[in-house]
Amino acid sequence: MSKKSFEIEMKVRDYECDAQGIVNNANYQHYYEVTRHEFLESVGISFSDSHDEGIDPVVSRVEIHYKTSLKGGDRFISSMTVERKGVRLIFSQNIKRKTDHALCSTATIDVVVLVNGVLSMGNQYDKVLEEYLKD
Amino acid sequence: MSKKSFEIEMKVRDYECDAQGIVNNANYQHYYEVTRHEFLESVGISFSDSHDEGIDPVVSRVEIHYKTSLKGGDRFISSMTVERKGVRLIFSQNIKRKTDHALCSTATIDVVVLVNGVLSMGNQYDKVLEEYLKD
Amino acid sequence: MSKKSFEIEMKVRDYECDAQGIVNNANYQHYYEVTRHEFLESVGISFSDSHDEGIDPVVSRVEIHYKTSLKGGDRFISSMTVERKGVRLIFSQNIKRKTDHALCSTATIDVVVLVNGVLSMGNQYDKVLEEYLKD
Amino acid sequence: MSKKSFEIEMKVRDYECDAQGIVNNANYQHYYEVTRHEFLESVGISFSDSHDEGIDPVVSRVEIHYKTSLKGGDRFISSMTVERKGVRLIFSQNIKRKTDHALCSTATIDVVVLVNGVLSMGNQYDKVLEEYLKD
Repeated sequence: MSKKSFEIEMKVRDYECDAQGIVNNANYQHYYEVTRHEFLESVGISFSDSHDEGIDPVVSRVEIHYKTSLKGGDRFISSMTVERKGVRLIFSQNIKRKTDHALCSTATIDVVVLVNGVLSMGNQYDKVLEEYLKD
Repeated sequence: MSKKSFEIEMKVRDYECDAQGIVNNANYQHYYEVTRHEFLESVGISFSDSHDEGIDPVVSRVEIHYKTSLKGGDRFISSMTVERKGVRLIFSQNIKRKTDHALCSTATIDVVVLVNGVLSMGNQYDKVLEEYLKD
Repeated sequence: MSKKSFEIEMKVRDYECDAQGIVNNANYQHYYEVTRHEFLESVGISFSDSHDEGIDPVVSRVEIHYKTSLKGGDRFISSMTVERKGVRLIFSQNIKRKTDHALCSTATIDVVVLVNGVLSMGNQYDKVLEEYLKD
Repeated sequence: MSKKSFEIEMKVRDYECDAQGIVNNANYQHYYEVTRHEFLESVGISFSDSHDEGIDPVVSRVEIHYKTSLKGGDRFISSMTVERKGVRLIFSQNIKRKTDHALCSTATIDVVVLVNGVLSMGNQYDKVLEEYLKD
């Protein structure tokens, strides 16, 4: 409950909708990724610098629930918290439509950290994420 | 074990890779969707005709595991089985690299069927899917 | 020179980069589309409402020049002017990197307006675009 | 007229359509890119191997005309010829719907070749492209 969360506001782009007139499912995964990368940037971690140093956060599992569909032009709030379980960083994320706070989607994303391609202990980010990792 | 499966061969397009040089996670969701739509077409269900008749299969939940990364130009086999649990059609899918059969990803996708926007019993397709639904 | 222009600030999303580590060419077309739709919204034209009324602005031709590549996380300014030539609305657009104003791309996009699928005179928007259409 | 052409057959994926129910414009650029990469592969040039050797073919300009819209599930033939003008490789491409050969789109794509990031004479591929470059 008291975990520190991070959030950004985004807006659906028309090309992200498919012929059903709603945002295509796979694009929510893009929204969730953008949110995590913005989060990492906010604590001083550059995704591309990390990559150049041989450190690659990699998604090992996603679970996404779809509840209310977003449409072209909809504004929404994408928020997340993060915790560490063993070698995994686990992101709990959700997306709410801005106008009425309708819950559009929830997700749990497991991330592991590869160092030069090898699974690591995942504690590289413990220091910078400290404020977010504690309960 | 004896469930009837459906599979197609696909090939990674270079633009589907991201700066890490591997297929971006969200694109696996696209691959899985393409596979289900090809499957539906193979049993005579047109996704767009269905939509015009007010019948929309909608994904309610996805769980995707990422194991081995695909790269630009890789060929892969995307296969699936389907079963019905209550109102949900549950697709068990996976993607294997063609050259060495390495398991790249597995997924469980829950689909419900909306009729004019309202959740249905999901039995519209029982007849055409008969061969695939039985154990 | 004195034409009124419209601009928005955007930021590259990491998944928009390809294996070359730069934004994939096709995504500039997305950026340009987002800019035009934001522009239309700013003058009170909803893209999806238009569609529901049978009025569809359709791109008939694009010409895009690529000059300096954007990378993951780059902020950029996407700006445009619009003029009318016969039945066509012609958008002159460009993208500049925010940090140093480097010109990344320029584009000319021709749009025609279909009414119930038939090419129209394209003057539906003359009134709302008045301020932008005049020299 | 007598120039040697290269072609592949592709099929529209439903997620490539937008809310207008037709393939989003930017996706044609993807189709054209896939075709060029398949072409390069057919003459023995690997896009990613090239990149690793510091040789990057880069698009400097695209001009795309849109004529007939493709819809979900449509099969189409994407074909191309290539010529060299100074440092540029110029690809003339088009897309035709398979069922009735309707011309959906034409494109001219200018490509230059960067070697370690610097513009080259673009003659790296003259030998392997010989058959296609001659009139």
